[in-house]
Amino acid sequence: MNEALAALIDDIGDVTFSVEPSLLRRRSRDYFWYSQALAEDLRGKQADVIVTPRSEAEVVRVAAACARRRVPLTPRGGGTGNYGQCVPLQGGVVLDMSEMTAVEWVRPGVMRTQPGARLHLVDEMLRVGGQEQRLHPSTKRSATVGGFVAGGSGGVGSVTWGGLREPGNVLAARVVTCEETPRVIELRGDAAQKVNRAYGTTGVVTALEMPLAPLWDWIDIAVVFDSFAAACEAGLSVALADGVVKKLLTPISWPIPSYFGPFASACPEGHSLLIAMIAKPSLETFKTLIGSRGEIVHEKPFDESPAETPIYEYSWNHTTLQVLKIDRNVSYQQCLFPHDRLLDSVAEMVQLFGDEVWHHLEFIRFGGRVTASALPVVRFTSRERLFEIVEIYEKHGVFVANPHVFTLEDGSRHKRADADQRGFKAEVDPLGLLNPGKMRTYQPTRV
Amino acid sequence: MNEALAALIDDIGDVTFSVEPSLLRRRSRDYFWYSQALAEDLRGKQADVIVTPRSEAEVVRVAAACARRRVPLTPRGGGTGNYGQCVPLQGGVVLDMSEMTAVEWVRPGVMRTQPGARLHLVDEMLRVGGQEQRLHPSTKRSATVGGFVAGGSGGVGSVTWGGLREPGNVLAARVVTCEETPRVIELRGDAAQKVNRAYGTTGVVTALEMPLAPLWDWIDIAVVFDSFAAACEAGLSVALADGVVKKLLTPISWPIPSYFGPFASACPEGHSLLIAMIAKPSLETFKTLIGSRGEIVHEKPFDESPAETPIYEYSWNHTTLQVLKIDRNVSYQQCLFPHDRLLDSVAEMVQLFGDEVWHHLEFIRFGGRVTASALPVVRFTSRERLFEIVEIYEKHGVFVANPHVFTLEDGSRHKRADADQRGFKAEVDPLGLLNPGKMRTYQPTRV
Repeated sequence: MNEALAALIDDIGDVTFSVEPSLLRRRSRDYFWYSQALAEDLRGKQADVIVTPRSEAEVVRVAAACARRRVPLTPRGGGTGNYGQCVPLQGGVVLDMSEMTAVEWVRPGVMRTQPGARLHLVDEMLRVGGQEQRLHPSTKRSATVGGFVAGGSGGVGSVTWGGLREPGNVLAARVVTCEETPRVIELRGDAAQKVNRAYGTTGVVTALEMPLAPLWDWIDIAVVFDSFAAACEAGLSVALADGVVKKLLTPISWPIPSYFGPFASACPEGHSLLIAMIAKPSLETFKTLIGSRGEIVHEKPFDESPAETPIYEYSWNHTTLQVLKIDRNVSYQQCLFPHDRLLDSVAEMVQLFGDEVWHHLEFIRFGGRVTASALPVVRFTSRERLFEIVEIYEKHGVFVANPHVFTLEDGSRHKRADADQRGFKAEVDPLGLLNPGKMRTYQPTRV
Repeated sequence: MNEALAALIDDIGDVTFSVEPSLLRRRSRDYFWYSQALAEDLRGKQADVIVTPRSEAEVVRVAAACARRRVPLTPRGGGTGNYGQCVPLQGGVVLDMSEMTAVEWVRPGVMRTQPGARLHLVDEMLRVGGQEQRLHPSTKRSATVGGFVAGGSGGVGSVTWGGLREPGNVLAARVVTCEETPRVIELRGDAAQKVNRAYGTTGVVTALEMPLAPLWDWIDIAVVFDSFAAACEAGLSVALADGVVKKLLTPISWPIPSYFGPFASACPEGHSLLIAMIAKPSLETFKTLIGSRGEIVHEKPFDESPAETPIYEYSWNHTTLQVLKIDRNVSYQQCLFPHDRLLDSVAEMVQLFGDEVWHHLEFIRFGGRVTASALPVVRFTSRERLFEIVEIYEKHGVFVANPHVFTLEDGSRHKRADADQRGFKAEVDPLGLLNPGKMRTYQPTRV
């Protein structure tokens, strides 16, 4: 252990820390290995110490120590991201926020919570009062609220509410600056977007005010279609039906469903699925919209209990995970289709890549318009080809948030929050210690 | 009284009826006089008897009697429509449904009600359980559920849920046929659209299953802008913000606000308003979106109690009513702007008509897209000019549902339900007795 680190550990006093090697390894990783390029680029990058604060006061103490000792500081949530969000590019402290789990208060339509609260436990609590979180990633059962806001962009619920970057989907954030005398800053409204998808590089989030949704009785549904195009068309008709209350609408092309474990048998060889979460009172209308175009093969009240697999765990980037469980030789891609020629653009991509790219869409609202994002599964051949595929998508007018790069600037694209994150970083991280290198274009204002 | 009518009254036994002249006059009218053309065309059309059933069994008895005696039958709700919905074109029976007010059941997200239930009383009841109706017209405080479905197209709430014609916004309807032995038919899903905006010509509605929305604490808001264009732009940005929970978004151009009674003082001379209903937890985001573009001049928790004027009573066709209270020499127009060039199209119409047409918009969802419908106030010069204005709008790519004609076919246009209403009428009204002439193209299948 070097001198600075020893001094830092001394500075933080009774704040819990660990230098146990296997913990250092585990707490310095997320699911970046979905990308073979990131697996290569982030290999071996590791914290020197894991610090686990239990209060904002402890966060302040750690931030002060990092600033004083010029030691990098990288906050970490549940570690379910795919972009190396919690991988400390230059070592130092990984700040494990998983003990800061308190929900400070809940009101009709709003809650304020510490960042380490786990999304599924929060929903369990909210359910009692007839509310739930608007949005969650497919990793809901392990992810934290803070990790989601700091690295996510949307997910289950975005078909109704849009993504985290839409006005009103993050109401406020409280951050601790990384300075010798840290300040605590409350960001409200637009300003809260300064922490959205910034991977913790714009201050350590210690509280979030998040909007809530009224709770519905959700029904998990799967519908089989003859073709992917038919599943997409049916999905779009439901996405556009504002009278139908929905949380998830995911068309999935063959052969992806064959990788769905026990659920694989729901989809006959060569067919495509549309999986969905529909509010119980909208179920009849959903079925009317599907009509005779598809066959409902699964219909079950939503159940997140440990023995169950909720249908959202086949959607978003869990789709890739389901395939990876059986075949490690795949990767994925992240894109947003243009809303004004959505299905044509999808058809074009399907045509272009043949068996190399396996398609599935997520219907979402983006900027007030119904469109689809997608995390297609890609058969891995080479690193170069992964980047080539990105270029081909872009050349055809599909927006790509490249998941094979680890910097904020290169990866975010359409997922990027509409806020001056770099300008804000200069205020909160003058020494450039919040995971240096993650925001590639940032130049520290002090040394 | 003619022979058929006397026989009919004998047939209906103890079902309540009246031939009191002032009641005949009052119960044969709605607010069609907003259109000078309709005022002329519908003048003097009047029922021979008003019958007020208290149960479906009584409706069946009246329908049987009308069929047996070949007497026209015209159902009526609250009488708040603007298209002569309850005006019996060939006299006969006006069936006043206002006594059939029972809410049969309420479940999470759905209710089943008799048609005469008043919208505001239903909401009062639903509120206790944390729910409310998705949509209501600006005449909520006098209109009935049945009258709204039979003649309405949308209203307050359509900025979130779309109109009544969107899948899922009318779940089921029960109708009594007009035959010597009436049948009772349950229409579910798509089929329920056969009664939407059919003015009661496709069967007498005796029950409706309607979807409900979670109740929010609504805040009535008014914002002043320098120009109508600025109010429209700000409104559109809120309409497109899926994270903001809203029920009403109405930009209103000068001089309309000067007609708003005590509320007129909120808007300085020459300025425009944006009035809105925003859920309390979304208020901060709403204000952020408005920013410095406008000034909030009214902000008050929603209050529908008798002494209050909720802000929705300045929106939709209540806007016209507010002007008519002071100046009877105006009329209005009904249109839907194209979603893909919304503000350009609005600007074009503003430019085109100068002071002859006073503009206000209703942001809505239509077919899954954010757009705006409008009920502009028109300075009345002549009947011919009213129709000319319709043509000018249409020539410029704006859809018009002509409010100066009284037949279903000529008036509905984009408001028309997507269902074979004429085909269904042949089933339920073979003798053509349900307000003959209202569905102009219908030919009775029997005599």
